[in-house]
Amino acid sequence: MPINRQWVLRRRPEGEVGPDDLELVETLTPELNDGEVLIRTLYLSLDPTNRIWMSDQVQYLPPVKIGDVMRGGVIGVVERSRAASLPEGTIVNPGLGGWQDYIVASEGVARRVPHLSGVPLTAHMSVLGATGMTAYFGLMDIGRPQPGETVVVSAAAGAVGSIVGQLAKLKGCRVIGIAGGPQKCRWLTHDLGFDGAIDYKSQDVAAELARLAPNGVDINFENVGGKVMDAVVGQMNTFSRMPLCGMISTYNSETAPGPSDFGRVLMHRILIKGFIVIDYLPRAAEALAELAPLVASHQLKWKAHVVDGLENALDAMGRLFTGDHDGKLLVRVSPEP
Amino acid sequence: MPINRQWVLRRRPEGEVGPDDLELVETLTPELNDGEVLIRTLYLSLDPTNRIWMSDQVQYLPPVKIGDVMRGGVIGVVERSRAASLPEGTIVNPGLGGWQDYIVASEGVARRVPHLSGVPLTAHMSVLGATGMTAYFGLMDIGRPQPGETVVVSAAAGAVGSIVGQLAKLKGCRVIGIAGGPQKCRWLTHDLGFDGAIDYKSQDVAAELARLAPNGVDINFENVGGKVMDAVVGQMNTFSRMPLCGMISTYNSETAPGPSDFGRVLMHRILIKGFIVIDYLPRAAEALAELAPLVASHQLKWKAHVVDGLENALDAMGRLFTGDHDGKLLVRVSPEP
Repeated sequence: MPINRQWVLRRRPEGEVGPDDLELVETLTPELNDGEVLIRTLYLSLDPTNRIWMSDQVQYLPPVKIGDVMRGGVIGVVERSRAASLPEGTIVNPGLGGWQDYIVASEGVARRVPHLSGVPLTAHMSVLGATGMTAYFGLMDIGRPQPGETVVVSAAAGAVGSIVGQLAKLKGCRVIGIAGGPQKCRWLTHDLGFDGAIDYKSQDVAAELARLAPNGVDINFENVGGKVMDAVVGQMNTFSRMPLCGMISTYNSETAPGPSDFGRVLMHRILIKGFIVIDYLPRAAEALAELAPLVASHQLKWKAHVVDGLENALDAMGRLFTGDHDGKLLVRVSPEP
Repeated sequence: MPINRQWVLRRRPEGEVGPDDLELVETLTPELNDGEVLIRTLYLSLDPTNRIWMSDQVQYLPPVKIGDVMRGGVIGVVERSRAASLPEGTIVNPGLGGWQDYIVASEGVARRVPHLSGVPLTAHMSVLGATGMTAYFGLMDIGRPQPGETVVVSAAAGAVGSIVGQLAKLKGCRVIGIAGGPQKCRWLTHDLGFDGAIDYKSQDVAAELARLAPNGVDINFENVGGKVMDAVVGQMNTFSRMPLCGMISTYNSETAPGPSDFGRVLMHRILIKGFIVIDYLPRAAEALAELAPLVASHQLKWKAHVVDGLENALDAMGRLFTGDHDGKLLVRVSPEP
């Protein structure tokens, strides 16, 4: 059996993830039992939630244990098979995988990735994967956009945010994105059709939002928390909705406080709902039925930022928090067959 | 026409409401036009939300203007009538009234108060009025209690909280109340059938809650905000719900921050929804159909704390914030006919 490189969690990071928090080790892949396949990882997804899994804070899955392989979303190809339904060469999603070259999965767990003409594999790791479903269900199920409403999305040039904004535009909403830097803001308005963009690094978010959304905010798709969240909540309308998808600005800190003006949530009868995409996995087909045609017809634009080499995963993860990536952040662990 | 005493807002209170913030003045009641009635106020409702109306913070109704009569919920008797549908002697609710002896209302606005055998008029100012509807809709519509779930209610011995807890018990829930002082706590567990009560003035709320609700909290009916809210949110379960009804601990302060651990709202996919009872007025009949039989059969217990005399309204209001009242706080403005 081939050698398997694995990123193992050595200690819980404090603040930013550092080189001593994880270690790249080598093991042998185990022998297969009947019904199992050996999957060679093609792409590893890097997501803000990885930082949460490394911590022992209250979270939606058990924290990764010290000494365990780091958990991650992956897509791979079956390289050896003892499962008739998954012959060698099948492209599969083994559910939650790990930061490693190989993973063994049973045929009941690994899900075949459909081939869509003209759609690259990386789409299944982004717009047609957990990222796209996060955007779809958070916006549709919690946000419930109505034509003419104003939607604000933070981390708008990010993998989730960029899909949220485009879906909201397709629903007939006015969409304002909040992102870091003029280049990202230009991408939102020039390429994705957002009605406005706010550069939180150089602009006064509250003042710009008041200018761009003079009728207030009906949906705040919240990805960042902290001061940006406060600025948006301060302009949320009566009966507005706030899908709480993430608070990336707080993931390297000890605290993640709620909106400083919580009285507004009461006075304006605002709905806030935390959600995690795994809750919606039973409804994945519903999202894919809507998203796949939009992707195939290029009505929905998306980008992947692919870093080569499993050995670079840890360094690459830092980009999530600096914003120094252009599209869904992926690691190419091995070449596509 | 009779002389009308009115409490007029003179300035916006800072912190606790003081004697210079409102003034009791005398005017003459106006002549009636066709279709109008002169209503003599019987009972005036004192509610935490009155404090909000006195401020100019963001709120759900326009703030009471400086120089205007203070707004308040009232019930009264038609003393003079130029409306055939509302003869003299009819008991009516004129919608939102004021802190005054008399109010003129048109027959389209004043709603006849039904006579229920064995149910005193004060019930219509509490358990069968806005108070009861607040409890009913917040719990049922947002909380959606299921048998066996754990419900926590703060300000549990208050007018709303005591109804919330009893309704949750009727739905088969385990109910823990948070109240101030051993006497109130005893009332909750001995008289109202709560499964447990926590005295926030003398006990560690988080520690007691962990003891009384070992399976965590499924519904937090939030009335107080601040530290008590934080203690409860810290023990809310995955997919739990938080009807946000009030934040009385913050009404005399400048700030009303959200939960300090907002990350938990995300990780546990908690639903938070602010609400105001006036949003549910179109569905009032639904609540009354459920509540009236429970009141008439004494399955639902309630208390009114009646202070005599309009001139004592301002002093009485302070009791809302100290907790120094025993049941729904009302002012008897004039005797029942």
